Amino acid sequence: MDSGLGGLTVARAIRSRLPAENIVYFGDTARLPYGSKTAATVTGFVREIVGYLLPLNPKHVVVACNTATALALSAVRADFPGVSISGVIEPGALAATALTEHLPDPVFGVLATEGTVASGAYEKILMRGRPGATVVQQPAPLLVPIIEEGRDGSDPIVKLALRQYLMPLLARRPDVIVLGCTHYPILRDEIERIAGPDVAIVDAAGPCAEDIAGKLGASGQLRQGGEGWIRYFVTDKVPRFARMASAFLGTDIGRPVWVAPEELHATHPSEAIDRDMSRVG
Amino acid sequence: MDSGLGGLTVARAIRSRLPAENIVYFGDTARLPYGSKTAATVTGFVREIVGYLLPLNPKHVVVACNTATALALSAVRADFPGVSISGVIEPGALAATALTEHLPDPVFGVLATEGTVASGAYEKILMRGRPGATVVQQPAPLLVPIIEEGRDGSDPIVKLALRQYLMPLLARRPDVIVLGCTHYPILRDEIERIAGPDVAIVDAAGPCAEDIAGKLGASGQLRQGGEGWIRYFVTDKVPRFARMASAFLGTDIGRPVWVAPEELHATHPSEAIDRDMSRVG
Repeated sequence: MDSGLGGLTVARAIRSRLPAENIVYFGDTARLPYGSKTAATVTGFVREIVGYLLPLNPKHVVVACNTATALALSAVRADFPGVSISGVIEPGALAATALTEHLPDPVFGVLATEGTVASGAYEKILMRGRPGATVVQQPAPLLVPIIEEGRDGSDPIVKLALRQYLMPLLARRPDVIVLGCTHYPILRDEIERIAGPDVAIVDAAGPCAEDIAGKLGASGQLRQGGEGWIRYFVTDKVPRFARMASAFLGTDIGRPVWVAPEELHATHPSEAIDRDMSRVG
Repeated sequence: MDSGLGGLTVARAIRSRLPAENIVYFGDTARLPYGSKTAATVTGFVREIVGYLLPLNPKHVVVACNTATALALSAVRADFPGVSISGVIEPGALAATALTEHLPDPVFGVLATEGTVASGAYEKILMRGRPGATVVQQPAPLLVPIIEEGRDGSDPIVKLALRQYLMPLLARRPDVIVLGCTHYPILRDEIERIAGPDVAIVDAAGPCAEDIAGKLGASGQLRQGGEGWIRYFVTDKVPRFARMASAFLGTDIGRPVWVAPEELHATHPSEAIDRDMSRVG
């Protein structure tokens, strides 16, 4: 689950690492973005969505949104104690610390939403792994709207916004910059260009998929052989979602199933699929 | 009601035109922005909010958001036939046509959200008033996030975004540019600077307040004397709202009452006020 498109970077990594698994992707397009909203609001949204997905009996649920991970993961884990749920912050932070093992006192930059920065979630895990490290955080509230609008790295507003957000981080000469929002890898090329060759850029998608592969393997739940499918649910039927998701994943994703926020409590996902199939347009 | 801060431009105009009236301002900060969402989603949100406000017996309800007016006003009027409800598009469009009465074939520019542009709502009213007119619309999806982030006209990203959005309008040599989103007047100075002295800039706030004064006067409901109060409700308790609203209105608005989206069906506004009073923090 994600607020919108960002979690697709994680879905793509899971698809590539675990091609036999079936994936249900849930984008909360009616209520996005999450990044500037409070823990109470984001936790309410994530709780509804995880509860909605449970009748599908997922082997694992990934909160593929850094803001939701930072603000809601522990609360939602407590709400659903029998369900395997992971987030994107720990895998990304551990990948970042692993990259700096050879350095005495690494400097980490974290580019994230306001909610993720304010939570201090990255700082906590990075400092636990590398107690001598320096962690510099930078909130970047405009990047999600910019990406959801479909602007790419060649757009002058994208270049200017990235420069505004990255310069304070780069001034501290970081060894690694963590892309602390699942949307940001969509602008990764431009971020790498601005950061230059001496800064490693880490995002959570690959490490998160690896983490899930490990969890499913350890519990003997990996699906053997066959090709898994991926199905999409959205809370608002914005035409942009299918267009941008298809472009990003390099394959036509078809029409996502639409389930309005007020239906999340009342509708079974299979009913929503059936109903959507019979809808025109 | 508005998705967030934008409707404050209308609230300020109502306050100034009708200082004796009491105002309840509702900002849907948990689910903003509305501008890139569909009619079904926005109508669902507006219906919930208007239904929530009804126990307060409002003399009049203003949908102080252009996207909500364009996508939801007629549906919500039909849902609540006994309630006086108006929007911001008609007053703004009529003010624009009035300005061009002396011109043979006026050119109107409309700067608005994607939802408002796609609805064609401005075009319809402008062309009805001036059948010989040319209407050029420009969607500006980044402006609301930029304004909600608190950036002002001096910020280089604001200047660049305004230039990107205004240049295609200015190339058509408009007589009037309508600010078709209640957020945009917050950047009015910079918009006027870019547009130059030959283009009139119109926003809906003043005309909308005038329209309400006319309606209340005609039905004999104007409050005589005394000083009205204004009270704020929000769906997410974001600290930014009170800070930015206080700055914009030039007075400390205190702490808005928080009512989460899932409580809109179940809580009476007076209960929310009482509960909020007893909450800490």
